[in-house]
Amino acid sequence: MSAWSVLAATVVETVHSLILPHGVSEEGPVVPGWRSLEIITKFGHWVGDKIIMMNIDGGLWTELVVTTVNCTYLMPDGMSFQEAAAISVNYAAAYMMIYDYANLRPNQSILIHMAAGGVGIAATQLCKLVHDVTIFGTASPSKHETIKENGVAYPIDYTTLDYAEEVRKISPKGVDIVLDPLGGADDSKGFGLLKSLGKLVLYGSANQVTAPKRSSLAAAKVWWHKFNIDALQLINSNKAVCGFHLGRTDPDHVAEVIRKLISLYKEGKIKPKVDSVWSFEQVGDAMKHMQEHKNIGKIILVPEVKTTDATTGN
Amino acid sequence: MSAWSVLAATVVETVHSLILPHGVSEEGPVVPGWRSLEIITKFGHWVGDKIIMMNIDGGLWTELVVTTVNCTYLMPDGMSFQEAAAISVNYAAAYMMIYDYANLRPNQSILIHMAAGGVGIAATQLCKLVHDVTIFGTASPSKHETIKENGVAYPIDYTTLDYAEEVRKISPKGVDIVLDPLGGADDSKGFGLLKSLGKLVLYGSANQVTAPKRSSLAAAKVWWHKFNIDALQLINSNKAVCGFHLGRTDPDHVAEVIRKLISLYKEGKIKPKVDSVWSFEQVGDAMKHMQEHKNIGKIILVPEVKTTDATTGN
Repeated sequence: MSAWSVLAATVVETVHSLILPHGVSEEGPVVPGWRSLEIITKFGHWVGDKIIMMNIDGGLWTELVVTTVNCTYLMPDGMSFQEAAAISVNYAAAYMMIYDYANLRPNQSILIHMAAGGVGIAATQLCKLVHDVTIFGTASPSKHETIKENGVAYPIDYTTLDYAEEVRKISPKGVDIVLDPLGGADDSKGFGLLKSLGKLVLYGSANQVTAPKRSSLAAAKVWWHKFNIDALQLINSNKAVCGFHLGRTDPDHVAEVIRKLISLYKEGKIKPKVDSVWSFEQVGDAMKHMQEHKNIGKIILVPEVKTTDATTGN
Repeated sequence: MSAWSVLAATVVETVHSLILPHGVSEEGPVVPGWRSLEIITKFGHWVGDKIIMMNIDGGLWTELVVTTVNCTYLMPDGMSFQEAAAISVNYAAAYMMIYDYANLRPNQSILIHMAAGGVGIAATQLCKLVHDVTIFGTASPSKHETIKENGVAYPIDYTTLDYAEEVRKISPKGVDIVLDPLGGADDSKGFGLLKSLGKLVLYGSANQVTAPKRSSLAAAKVWWHKFNIDALQLINSNKAVCGFHLGRTDPDHVAEVIRKLISLYKEGKIKPKVDSVWSFEQVGDAMKHMQEHKNIGKIILVPEVKTTDATTGN
């Protein structure tokens, strides 16, 4: 299919999780934004179609975008723009980490950090698609009810307890998989929690960010505790470490995964959770909301709408 | 099931591949040996049954062994002792590396080093069970015909060519999986050959061994080029590194895999390749035969039989 351009009638974006919030920064200056949703207003027979657009090179936090048709996906009936915004990056990342890397199978166990975040909610739902998987999830206590409803069997209050000890109380041998967006000392802790043939999936360095902004001390701590491993240590431990970066993933594979996710949505097997909706002008407040760990699910940005906070109803 | 002992009427062992030959040594003194095969001569209704015995703690290069029933598997009809000896460790290791770790799927590609060795032969056959997998395999030229018959699409003469360049001539983006028993500089080279979301599976350090015995210079070179990676490098490369050590694997999982392999054998989907048979007294010569890279397939040790070299018929 040839390249074509889209005049965006409605652009909906999300505050996504791989740029500043998780500490893996892009080189600036950039226009961030990995996905948007549009109603097509030009271009013949596509007029009126709602589409998801995904561009892993970024540049979509803007009101007008140009893209190629192979970065777009028709939104299924019944899917809202907000759900569509919540589904692409988070679910695609969670899907690849769980199925491409960790190869989750029946009767296995997984520890999901930030289980109330966008990726955490998605990962939990995707793990539930496999039979008899035991899910441990960390979150602050106010979010435990929500993550439990979402499928986490054992919510852990990481703010007051040692999550590794809590996991071992239930599963003395540890877990098969750890999804880790934290970085620093938590990487080693996660590696230590793995059973034999277990996989640690690293996808961020959130410990570098202490609200409301990046802290040099936190960054130095993460650097000091940087996870580092050599071939013999890996062989002798009989474990795996996987590094995940959606932006470095083959676009054809991303497209395949998004189509799979749209199918799962249509079958009612996954259901994105939207935390709150903010206007482009409020992007700073939206980021702060996330960095202060206040969100449960995805934070959405839209060009014109004023804030509606799903958690407060305001 | 309770523990019981076996009086070995026939013990068949293999020169296995994870102790000295691949440079990952056990602490001595030890009795090596991970598997044996027996005809039961005592113990009621089991008398006459042929069994595979597998003990990942070693100790089976001996004429008399004591084991527990859950380390034993009934040999299927038509399987010879030699095939049984060749099937357990090699195929179990290859199976776990390919299916538990690398998660091989249709249309993917893999580079198998030492494709004519015991694990290499097993890995090639197990890869062929998945639809449309492209297999690259390294071996010296005299072995190319055999590995091609076994399923390697692109045999590479690593003795005169740069295997990474050869792979890229066929597959410019590289491969999805590298099975690497080599260590040292080859680990980094394998990592560099991976596509995005690719997996490097490390399971030895054969480069430390230059025939006929371990060389300090070779060991120093391996140490100098030791593969070492940190969290951010892994995330930014969007790749995984898996360390495999059968001896550190959960025994229940090993048992599950061996049962699966016996089924595959019965279905005619895998067929062990025996290189040669040696007596216990000839263990030194058998090891030398392997370290000089002369074998194609598995080298078998038996307690009493004199050497019969499958390649020469002597």
